[in-house]
Amino acid sequence: MSSAELATTADGEPGSRFLDEIREQPEALLRLLEGEAEFARIAAEIRERDATTIRMVGHGSSDNAASYGVYAFGLLPRWTALRDSISLTVYYKAELDMSGCTVLALSQSGRTPDVVEYARQAKERGAYTVAFTNDASSQLACEADAVIELRAGHEQAVAATKTYSNQVAALGLLAAHCGGAEGSFADGIRVVAETMPQLIRSVELRIASVAIPFAYAGRMFVVGRGAEFATAREIALKLLETCRIAAEPLTATDLAHGPVAALDSLFPVWAIASDDPTLPAVVEAVQRAREAGATIIASGSAADAITGADYTLSSPRAASPLLEPLLSIVPGQLFAWALARTRGLDPDSPRGLSKVTLAR
Amino acid sequence: MSSAELATTADGEPGSRFLDEIREQPEALLRLLEGEAEFARIAAEIRERDATTIRMVGHGSSDNAASYGVYAFGLLPRWTALRDSISLTVYYKAELDMSGCTVLALSQSGRTPDVVEYARQAKERGAYTVAFTNDASSQLACEADAVIELRAGHEQAVAATKTYSNQVAALGLLAAHCGGAEGSFADGIRVVAETMPQLIRSVELRIASVAIPFAYAGRMFVVGRGAEFATAREIALKLLETCRIAAEPLTATDLAHGPVAALDSLFPVWAIASDDPTLPAVVEAVQRAREAGATIIASGSAADAITGADYTLSSPRAASPLLEPLLSIVPGQLFAWALARTRGLDPDSPRGLSKVTLAR
Repeated sequence: MSSAELATTADGEPGSRFLDEIREQPEALLRLLEGEAEFARIAAEIRERDATTIRMVGHGSSDNAASYGVYAFGLLPRWTALRDSISLTVYYKAELDMSGCTVLALSQSGRTPDVVEYARQAKERGAYTVAFTNDASSQLACEADAVIELRAGHEQAVAATKTYSNQVAALGLLAAHCGGAEGSFADGIRVVAETMPQLIRSVELRIASVAIPFAYAGRMFVVGRGAEFATAREIALKLLETCRIAAEPLTATDLAHGPVAALDSLFPVWAIASDDPTLPAVVEAVQRAREAGATIIASGSAADAITGADYTLSSPRAASPLLEPLLSIVPGQLFAWALARTRGLDPDSPRGLSKVTLAR
Repeated sequence: MSSAELATTADGEPGSRFLDEIREQPEALLRLLEGEAEFARIAAEIRERDATTIRMVGHGSSDNAASYGVYAFGLLPRWTALRDSISLTVYYKAELDMSGCTVLALSQSGRTPDVVEYARQAKERGAYTVAFTNDASSQLACEADAVIELRAGHEQAVAATKTYSNQVAALGLLAAHCGGAEGSFADGIRVVAETMPQLIRSVELRIASVAIPFAYAGRMFVVGRGAEFATAREIALKLLETCRIAAEPLTATDLAHGPVAALDSLFPVWAIASDDPTLPAVVEAVQRAREAGATIIASGSAADAITGADYTLSSPRAASPLLEPLLSIVPGQLFAWALARTRGLDPDSPRGLSKVTLAR
């Protein structure tokens, strides 16, 4: 393999920003760790306040990262974490007692209007509020009691990549600090950051040949379970926004509860298999999809456990299943980049989107 | 309009069971109210135990109903209700402290394996567990501390209809009992049951003409927010399983955070508009979808507020926004029935599905 086979990213070429930012993820992860003192301080504050019900809010990629937070907080400090309804508080003005709760408000820009408004109201209702944002001077950061700065660096492509992975890492690291496992988790992030450049390079070199057969695909399911459900949601969102594929994320078990009926040979399924206790459920779901005639793309650290997959995009094992989503997202991001280019679309600037979403 | 225009449902005709069961919903709702004493007893037990964090679990239509539960419990007793991760407990064996929690385990058959297993483990972890099931002698009912029997009557079509609406009503009624609003909520269900036959009849008479233009549609977004997000999820699932459309549910605001980029004139959007505080967000989202060229189907009690919709399928106002999802689901069910027939599919028996899903 010569480096000449890697795409160059001349400024202004469609997708060059998106690809640059995918490649920047390892260094962004390392920058996140520079702010670790603040994670320790916030974790101490959460314990001090006994605010151990974790309410997470965000839209798009931020909400996908929150799916990961459910597992990080459930497995590390063993606390209940939920992706909260924003509309219940912001639109219906439900008078929930949020004392005993910590709110993690996720917004790359720190400007998503209903996330800012939720954080403001949650604070009034007694919650301890923490902004997870890439802009420490944003409105969200100002409203919140504390700020986790994502330190991903300026993100220019409309479709999030490095801010997503830094949100995932930040949620995991905060959960680890809350559960007394911060040392090994931070080390795990460092190892991921060391491993990732080689993963990016090797996937980049072969991703065009995997993407081309899907040039005309109109729809896809992306299946994962447990900690990798966040990855499934994020890959589906990348495919929707950059490739205009109707890609829907499903848990492995949900696939069997209805959606499998829609599958056929023109309805591909992307499966993320991790070497963790959810693996049998994922393997069983893919078996069912294959019986329905679907083309299968297998990814994740246990991609090889998916027998008969049409395409396999493995990612390395990590120190724990909670670290693997930082690696397993990479093939999905690069597939979206390659497929968008195959389809003549510009993943830096999807139609109808802007970088900061101010929509209600 | 003569009754001759209504479809007859000769036994064995494709879709006849599905249509029969849609039509049976009003009587199923009234049967649910016959068991109201048990709702009162369980609500008293929840308060007695101070088990006011509500964890809901289910797959498919049951999980869609749980989305409604978030709003019912948030608005009536003002408690936090969440759609819990099943895999966190069942696969990862996370040692969450569930004292102070009530588990509502939703399964029509009472046999969904991981829902049964979740209920068993949650009880061990200190939760008060309540089975919501159509089979009071099922394994789930036996494992749980208490049972809400859905009383929907035997459901034969694989795609759920009357068990879904009775799950929604049961969640609302239990929340109302917990919040001291049971009288008006039960009255509201009675009014809905009286209103629904006329709604079913009028939609049935014109639904074929709305469905036919979508004969070749491959994908769709179904948009709702707040209490109607459950309806959006359930309509999308009906379209997936009975019509093999890649239909994805989105909250109104999530549409703007990426998915809107996928829309064009061949990617229709179904929007559910309710006359409640979320209406401006839904109207704004549909405006954005229309600008992208999408064909719009507007439904719900405030369907008329969606200007420029290509098709409008209004449902009646109800006594509160929390009762409207019982009516707004009907046009979606009948659209799925009509479109499946247009496409030559049998909505009673979608390919690859069976009535009781025993998948992991």
